[in-house]
Amino acid sequence: MFSASSLYAAIDLGSNSFHMLVVREVAGNIQTVARIKRKVRLAAGLNGAGELSEEAMERGLQCLRLFSEQLQDIPADQIRVVATATLRLAANAKHFLTQAEAILGCLVNVISGEEEARLIYQGVAHTTGGSDERLVVDIGGGSTELVTGTGAQTTALFSLSMGCVTWLEHYFADRHLGKANFEQAEQAARAIIQPVAERLRAQGWQICVGASGTVQALQEIMVAQGMDERITLDKLQQLKQRAIKCGKLEELEIEGLTLERALVFPSGLSILIAIFEELNIESMTLAGGALREGLLYGMLHYPVDRDIRSRTIHNIQRRFIIDVEQAERVRQLAVSFVRQVSPHWTLDTYCRELLESACLIHEIGLSVDFRLATQHAAYLVRYLDLPGFTPAQKKLLATLLQNQSNGIDLALLNQQNAVPPREAERMCRLLRLAVIFASRRRDDTLPTVRLHSDDEALQVLLPPGWLQAHPLRAEMLEQESRWQSYVHWPLTVI
Amino acid sequence: MFSASSLYAAIDLGSNSFHMLVVREVAGNIQTVARIKRKVRLAAGLNGAGELSEEAMERGLQCLRLFSEQLQDIPADQIRVVATATLRLAANAKHFLTQAEAILGCLVNVISGEEEARLIYQGVAHTTGGSDERLVVDIGGGSTELVTGTGAQTTALFSLSMGCVTWLEHYFADRHLGKANFEQAEQAARAIIQPVAERLRAQGWQICVGASGTVQALQEIMVAQGMDERITLDKLQQLKQRAIKCGKLEELEIEGLTLERALVFPSGLSILIAIFEELNIESMTLAGGALREGLLYGMLHYPVDRDIRSRTIHNIQRRFIIDVEQAERVRQLAVSFVRQVSPHWTLDTYCRELLESACLIHEIGLSVDFRLATQHAAYLVRYLDLPGFTPAQKKLLATLLQNQSNGIDLALLNQQNAVPPREAERMCRLLRLAVIFASRRRDDTLPTVRLHSDDEALQVLLPPGWLQAHPLRAEMLEQESRWQSYVHWPLTVI
Repeated sequence: MFSASSLYAAIDLGSNSFHMLVVREVAGNIQTVARIKRKVRLAAGLNGAGELSEEAMERGLQCLRLFSEQLQDIPADQIRVVATATLRLAANAKHFLTQAEAILGCLVNVISGEEEARLIYQGVAHTTGGSDERLVVDIGGGSTELVTGTGAQTTALFSLSMGCVTWLEHYFADRHLGKANFEQAEQAARAIIQPVAERLRAQGWQICVGASGTVQALQEIMVAQGMDERITLDKLQQLKQRAIKCGKLEELEIEGLTLERALVFPSGLSILIAIFEELNIESMTLAGGALREGLLYGMLHYPVDRDIRSRTIHNIQRRFIIDVEQAERVRQLAVSFVRQVSPHWTLDTYCRELLESACLIHEIGLSVDFRLATQHAAYLVRYLDLPGFTPAQKKLLATLLQNQSNGIDLALLNQQNAVPPREAERMCRLLRLAVIFASRRRDDTLPTVRLHSDDEALQVLLPPGWLQAHPLRAEMLEQESRWQSYVHWPLTVI
Repeated sequence: MFSASSLYAAIDLGSNSFHMLVVREVAGNIQTVARIKRKVRLAAGLNGAGELSEEAMERGLQCLRLFSEQLQDIPADQIRVVATATLRLAANAKHFLTQAEAILGCLVNVISGEEEARLIYQGVAHTTGGSDERLVVDIGGGSTELVTGTGAQTTALFSLSMGCVTWLEHYFADRHLGKANFEQAEQAARAIIQPVAERLRAQGWQICVGASGTVQALQEIMVAQGMDERITLDKLQQLKQRAIKCGKLEELEIEGLTLERALVFPSGLSILIAIFEELNIESMTLAGGALREGLLYGMLHYPVDRDIRSRTIHNIQRRFIIDVEQAERVRQLAVSFVRQVSPHWTLDTYCRELLESACLIHEIGLSVDFRLATQHAAYLVRYLDLPGFTPAQKKLLATLLQNQSNGIDLALLNQQNAVPPREAERMCRLLRLAVIFASRRRDDTLPTVRLHSDDEALQVLLPPGWLQAHPLRAEMLEQESRWQSYVHWPLTVI
């Protein structure tokens, strides 16, 4: 059914690490089958003359020998290998590249900063939801890419000569985390950004997305500390203060920061602060992909969907053989409920769209088993790769699916941080009612339901005699009033 | 994609409970979408004259009104409603049935004991693995079915007038769990079995499968107490002693016995003991389905596969879009490894087949995500309905998949109870090596691997120079030696 010909590989020879990503194309979907990363620290091997040391090159080649064993099984036109900053700069890059190509058995493409920026933008555009007009920021080991774009099109792109590895060597070489180190690092970064800031700001954006290890580390810190996942200048400044308190690189300790990311975290942080300040960024979220994803989607010739979330949801519906008619029925009911309870219950477009996504995959748990189906749904949504949804949004979806029926876990609704708890509760209540009313899986048996909300009190008004004529759903609604009363949500059905 | 026309319902109006099972046919697979059960205790409503009381009938009709709401959406030829013992016997059954049919809007088929036995056998044959020649035992509320058969064909079938509800009323009416109660109950059961025992024994069987609440309860007790899942006369006698120690029905407390099953557990136990003794049964396992599954598979016209496990595995491979070539490659390697380590490592056919099943679905976790793929695999296998595999076998599969790579959880391998821990460890070691050698996903890159075992020491012998030429797998094997050494499994690779 699937042979080597459905395998694709994207390799990037970065300044800090070499990465190989091998995926399998399955029913229009990308499934990762191997991911290998080695910290070869190529940038650290550049000497004063801009030449790579023999040791650094050997570290790199050693890593490529590992990659090559897997690569031999993949058709050559389904492999892309790119090299970035350090190999753009190294005076003796050619010497390294000749050997690298002999080992890999395929071409290594040393891409320009602009090409890198373009690929990163494509990787983001294919995997990250939200508004169409975006600013993409990627802080690499040796370069930083800043790109604006709309949909699949970039509108301005820049590759700047600063990165978390080079900034570490320049401004934190003494391994000291002093105020002065940060100030110098930020100042230097600002000086590099200033010349391009005007042109970027002129393009404008509605959302800002970050795609590098630094942003990934920040995301992990936010989640570990139970914060809202949006990165703001305030939060960055707080983390900087915290780092300064730690004093030294080897004593850096922040809840949620992994050892693996700690070394280049302060240098990356200083660059990010400079970017926020120079570009007046309000908030940033983590991208679903970057350079390697850009390479892969380019090979696969997938179009950039304007609505990545829709594509993701349809993919999931197909892969898990979800009853799409039923999903759509529940979605329509939920949307009509949202309309009826407004303006008392303010559920904005953002909430409504997430509620719709939850409806469209609410039965995913049945693909595992009917017993504990809501637990299975939450498990799958928590761990599935859902391009277009941020980690916090995934957590909200998992929470809503877990609470779509039976007992309500209020703590879960309060732990998610995609929307305020009050709104999550309201979304949950509307989802539960939609599931009950649609339980017969037919449109022509849906009653005209009227919802009326008054603070947290919710009234369900049904046509006269409807409850008597529909004993199963009457029993479900009666039980539902009890479930909701246990968590102090007043619900009356008349 | 899926409409009401892919829905099927099977309803059984039993002596103790009424059940409705609604399934959706999805890609040749049955997915449960609703399951409703109500304890109407119809048998308890039979008076001295063999008539159902008005109250009992009303309890039953009330339940059918609930069922009917869902039934209206399902095509009439995709619904089967059957009634068993109590409605076969009740003098005023007709009065109840007329009302029942009016409520449900479809025919209620009062089936004979023989027809019930035949349907139960079909339900077992479609859902239960193991040898082809079987004895099926189903202890209902008002009747007990005993059937022998080969494949899809029954060879002898009997429906006996004893059940866990009627035996409760006759022999445990005083709610006392004395030695005398059990003896009378067993004696009465034996007297009913004796006339048919000879004819059943003459047919013979290789496995014995139980399909009722009593056997389900026993299975739950075994699992909760960490026992092997096979039910033996020894274990039944021990449980009887334990029940006698409790003294009274309302004080019955056995680890793993749920409240819901407690009331009719002693009466069911006494019948089962009598069956074991009269038919000389060595051991019994739980069936994957019975009456309702027989009704469903009958409607769906699925053939009875001789090898249910194979069908299940292929279904899973298709539903979760598993790379079947890779699965087959790993399976073949594992089988050749088993051959090479015997006779030092005794892995019998039973073990080998389970290992093969594990190989064929080892990548199922990738359908969720590459990260934590082994955890996802274990989760899915633990909860998926896998006809043909018993709960203990599923647990073993989940354990093997969890331990197919990376760190080894020895405790998990010891907790499963499908095979002895030592054998589970050996299966695990062979699976892990097969996964590593097959990691390139191509047949022509597999080396001639020689395995040599000496007690628990395992040697992997490779052609000269192979490790040098294959640095990725060399690295994996080196890491594997470390993983195995952490749990004191000596592994050398040369």
